[in-house]
Amino acid sequence: MMRPLVTLTTDFGMGSPYLAQMKGVLLSLARERSVDVEIIDITHAIGPQNVRQGAVVLADIAPRFPAGTIHVAVVDPGVGTRRRLIYAEIGTQKFLAPDNGLVSLLTRTNSLGSAFVLSDPQYWLPEPSRTFHGRDILAPVAAHLVSGLDPSRLGPPANDLVELELPQSIREGAAIHGEVLYVDSFGNLITNITHGDLTWCGDRAQLMVECAGRQIRGVLGTYGESPPGSLLALIDSQGRLEIAIACGSAARELGAAEREPVVVRGG
Amino acid sequence: MMRPLVTLTTDFGMGSPYLAQMKGVLLSLARERSVDVEIIDITHAIGPQNVRQGAVVLADIAPRFPAGTIHVAVVDPGVGTRRRLIYAEIGTQKFLAPDNGLVSLLTRTNSLGSAFVLSDPQYWLPEPSRTFHGRDILAPVAAHLVSGLDPSRLGPPANDLVELELPQSIREGAAIHGEVLYVDSFGNLITNITHGDLTWCGDRAQLMVECAGRQIRGVLGTYGESPPGSLLALIDSQGRLEIAIACGSAARELGAAEREPVVVRGG
Amino acid sequence: MMRPLVTLTTDFGMGSPYLAQMKGVLLSLARERSVDVEIIDITHAIGPQNVRQGAVVLADIAPRFPAGTIHVAVVDPGVGTRRRLIYAEIGTQKFLAPDNGLVSLLTRTNSLGSAFVLSDPQYWLPEPSRTFHGRDILAPVAAHLVSGLDPSRLGPPANDLVELELPQSIREGAAIHGEVLYVDSFGNLITNITHGDLTWCGDRAQLMVECAGRQIRGVLGTYGESPPGSLLALIDSQGRLEIAIACGSAARELGAAEREPVVVRGG
Repeated sequence: MMRPLVTLTTDFGMGSPYLAQMKGVLLSLARERSVDVEIIDITHAIGPQNVRQGAVVLADIAPRFPAGTIHVAVVDPGVGTRRRLIYAEIGTQKFLAPDNGLVSLLTRTNSLGSAFVLSDPQYWLPEPSRTFHGRDILAPVAAHLVSGLDPSRLGPPANDLVELELPQSIREGAAIHGEVLYVDSFGNLITNITHGDLTWCGDRAQLMVECAGRQIRGVLGTYGESPPGSLLALIDSQGRLEIAIACGSAARELGAAEREPVVVRGG
Repeated sequence: MMRPLVTLTTDFGMGSPYLAQMKGVLLSLARERSVDVEIIDITHAIGPQNVRQGAVVLADIAPRFPAGTIHVAVVDPGVGTRRRLIYAEIGTQKFLAPDNGLVSLLTRTNSLGSAFVLSDPQYWLPEPSRTFHGRDILAPVAAHLVSGLDPSRLGPPANDLVELELPQSIREGAAIHGEVLYVDSFGNLITNITHGDLTWCGDRAQLMVECAGRQIRGVLGTYGESPPGSLLALIDSQGRLEIAIACGSAARELGAAEREPVVVRGG
Repeated sequence: MMRPLVTLTTDFGMGSPYLAQMKGVLLSLARERSVDVEIIDITHAIGPQNVRQGAVVLADIAPRFPAGTIHVAVVDPGVGTRRRLIYAEIGTQKFLAPDNGLVSLLTRTNSLGSAFVLSDPQYWLPEPSRTFHGRDILAPVAAHLVSGLDPSRLGPPANDLVELELPQSIREGAAIHGEVLYVDSFGNLITNITHGDLTWCGDRAQLMVECAGRQIRGVLGTYGESPPGSLLALIDSQGRLEIAIACGSAARELGAAEREPVVVRGG
């Protein structure tokens, strides 16, 4: 029999010891119920309190996991305030997260199934802190779920989940206007302009991409088509337009960050 | 049957390849004995040779793990010198570490059980290096332990374990004097002043917290009670007084680091 | 029965979410075939596109793992170009990597067994991207292999694997001339001068090590033999000459990086 899978996505920072507290709680409670759970780290390098980046990363990654995987996500500037914690089934995956938009991008391309508010404290650690609900509520709830708890026991149905506003690219005359969604660990600029947006623009080799005062002619298929050090635009593995320096950091060279405007003009 | 659990806590740095050598040795020796061991990383971001930070992190985290978990800890400025390596049972957990105080904080709140010096080289890699005892001694010993070795075979009983001196907060008139224990990955300043220390001070909303020339009025229950960018003091999820910038880094804004004095005055 | 082991070594950066996509694909395809695979991260902190560093790290670490472990390695500046992806059995270990020299150092001390070009797309994800072959080709191939696929099905035999040129140390009169191979996460400078190179030089305590305009007298056995803050040379746990600052960063203090010349002179 396969071990149940739980993934963790947080803004704690790589190497944060807080994370290991969540793992200890999850392993302890699952093993008390004789369940050998497998924990996979997605990332802990989401920018602090950056719900938008967390939401994009989750939407890209969670659907790659086996059906039934439980994804625990903690990017939670509102911890200890009145924001809700929720359980939600989206597509083939399950999520435990604050109801702050963190899982909302997933519902654009996957159907939202059952969702419940985490309100019954019998599935939490006793006397939860007000600052660390990942350890005191989400991890114990995950342990109960992998041990077979019916999710409807967690609390009342969760309606009207918070939706994240994500900037959409806009077609304006012969141009597409978008922006940098986030900067990846290479310094590549990932934009909200998609493969699909470019299809009506004609020959990709003739497109002009503008960002941070720089112009790039043509959209490539891969990094290796351009010499090291050159600025280039390509469609990345998620189907998004990406601005990169071959073997370098576009974020540093262009001084560009999240929300930097990007324009693509037909050739 | 549950797989035996081994955790790793080191100052190797996140992504250090040295760590994977320990994992390879541990997995190889355990599997030769048909034991399917599960390895969990606690953190590898302990500051280089910072035994104090390592000790605080271990004391916070290890008790969260299932009973019988073996915690391998390597923060070892004395590697290759005469310092001892030890096995110790503390509370429900087991530890393999240098005898330099790294596990000593745990014995303040958990009972110290059996402890042995690692002196019998038949449980080590042959010809251990003088600079990497984590790989050459601790990892193989952990593999033998998860395979059922009686710990008393490792060497003679370990008496008089090294105690770490940790600064205690001091009550002086109407004030508590403490200091920053360590800086977490958000730049929050974690102090040695506890929830318990504050109970006699009266109304928390009226307390005055001083650190690095700044004054903070009131001790909050969570980050979200203060607007983004504001300097605040709160009791963290470990019951310690913490100085933080909501959505920011207190360490950077205050220019404060480990050992910075902190004073709390009654209102 | 032991779960099959797959390790991951990449230059994605610690915390890169791209990595979790590989894990999701690998877990999904293996579990569809009822195989409970265990994934171990070696490191994701290889410098971007630094094939040389990746090759040294793999050669140091892979042989520590249990026989039959599959090591997936992605340091791949040529992704999407005509470079081949290969499967290779080297010593007791198995590798999936671009054919760019990344696994070539292993063949110097371990025998190269079967090797195949990954050319049959039936073992890949459908419609693989041009920029992320780790997710779209290597991870699915690894899932097929742990599920029992005969590697000869992957494609034709791979002959003439690309060899990495690695600078060798040179004996010149009474001196050995070498260079810094890479800088580790402590800022220690790891050189291409080995334990064996020094054996003919006479008394180690009398050797003179020169690097970045600094001279160090004597090669030590371990860090602890030198006071904190001092510059020292020692033989590291891989048998390589290493230049270090006790409790500090030699790379920062000497302003030295990869390829910095190092000379050792007899006493």
